[in-house]
Amino acid sequence: MTRAELIDQILSKQSYLCVGLDSDLEKIPSHLMSAEDPQFEFNKQIIDATKAYCVSYKINTAFYEANGVKGWASLMKTVDYIPDTHFTIADAKRGDIGNTSSQYAKAFFEVMDFDAVTVAPYMGADSVKPFLEYPGKWTIVLGLTSNAGSADFEMLPAGAGLLYEQVLEKAATWGRPDNLMYVIGATRHEMIGKIRSAYPEHFFLVPGVGAQGGSLSGISRSGLNKDAGLLVNVSRAIIFAADKEDFAAAAETAAKQYQQEMAAYLREIGA
Amino acid sequence: MTRAELIDQILSKQSYLCVGLDSDLEKIPSHLMSAEDPQFEFNKQIIDATKAYCVSYKINTAFYEANGVKGWASLMKTVDYIPDTHFTIADAKRGDIGNTSSQYAKAFFEVMDFDAVTVAPYMGADSVKPFLEYPGKWTIVLGLTSNAGSADFEMLPAGAGLLYEQVLEKAATWGRPDNLMYVIGATRHEMIGKIRSAYPEHFFLVPGVGAQGGSLSGISRSGLNKDAGLLVNVSRAIIFAADKEDFAAAAETAAKQYQQEMAAYLREIGA
Repeated sequence: MTRAELIDQILSKQSYLCVGLDSDLEKIPSHLMSAEDPQFEFNKQIIDATKAYCVSYKINTAFYEANGVKGWASLMKTVDYIPDTHFTIADAKRGDIGNTSSQYAKAFFEVMDFDAVTVAPYMGADSVKPFLEYPGKWTIVLGLTSNAGSADFEMLPAGAGLLYEQVLEKAATWGRPDNLMYVIGATRHEMIGKIRSAYPEHFFLVPGVGAQGGSLSGISRSGLNKDAGLLVNVSRAIIFAADKEDFAAAAETAAKQYQQEMAAYLREIGA
Repeated sequence: MTRAELIDQILSKQSYLCVGLDSDLEKIPSHLMSAEDPQFEFNKQIIDATKAYCVSYKINTAFYEANGVKGWASLMKTVDYIPDTHFTIADAKRGDIGNTSSQYAKAFFEVMDFDAVTVAPYMGADSVKPFLEYPGKWTIVLGLTSNAGSADFEMLPAGAGLLYEQVLEKAATWGRPDNLMYVIGATRHEMIGKIRSAYPEHFFLVPGVGAQGGSLSGISRSGLNKDAGLLVNVSRAIIFAADKEDFAAAAETAAKQYQQEMAAYLREIGA
């Protein structure tokens, strides 16, 4: 999906919501466990219930790998099921030496047809660039994450700034705003305004709203740019909004609430 | 596998060789491509041919994910096939927020029965600790890697030293020498002596010997400790030593040469 197509989806739906399919088999409603593929069945119903209110789905590979070969099959069926109108993200946080990163890029961009993959920057340029070589695909580099551990290294003074600032700066020279995004955690929303000033064009994928406690108003008011420029991910607060037969209806209600709040923030900036 | 068992294997075989199963389907000898599972068939023959000369196998998940569900099945069959006498490493470089890292740990330590997994440190303590919680299992944290990109962030001045030094120092407080190792690239062997002085007890997993150009003599003479303390990985120079019907015999010859060189270095330190 191109940048123009993504922006068009956001403006027409008045939503920059990404639904995170962290579909932990141990948290899926028990009545689905008799399905042939409970994880896919759960995702299918969540996607049907939420697709009108979101522009993106983020599939966290860990929750599928934890089910072995069967989980990997559920993952592949899920990405195939997501409508072409929605931006698909493999939240895989991969990164290795060049020839190995190329294999990961092949896995997520060729074998599966994701629009984007999240990439860990620790190993530097040659671990990230193989992902950026795919035309029409996106690389989402971890910048400042939403977890407590982000204080350990990301926030260390490094070179002329903090480590995460060095990562943002170098990565901006490897890709462009039409094929590179950053992960910027919502629990750090007090810093998103500063990051937005430095990177006015780039999209930020913002996790941490909902169960992790990040504020949608804080990140929206400091992070939106003229093209929206945000994909805000919500996982547990939508997909596990209820744990019985009503889970899909509850997910729909939760997604709709996020969409309506987002529409209000988009109106504030005249988008 | 415990630390004592690993050391016992190293001393009795006079080898600290790890064979890297970077079994790229595009490089596997063509006569194997008619097998039901070419990737597993290749690995099986490589393991049979090299197991007398190595103490460990490292499976790089990227080369299996690039084949989708079938690749994931090949990966799982391979780890099951490796004898219990050999230390198995999932070279997965995973790392995410706590509840997600727990799912990765489950994938590699429960669903599959790897002894160890490589972990990327960028996201800090809560991204690494879920792996360390598994009794009898090992976490191998990326310290200083063997690729050119290691100069981008790992070598940045950060806090009181370089970033990779901060990573080694913090990780040493999260785990112990009997459940935590470091990845230290062989292409940086001039630095391994300094790192060994700072961490006399920890095992280092050393990639980059062979195709990447790292020197076995350099890393051995500066990195060996009284328990050996090294696992030196060789991938392409062993598994792709030949590309026809003789691939397994060529792998055996290459592995034996590495083992004999390692035996000489172990004799030098009286191990």
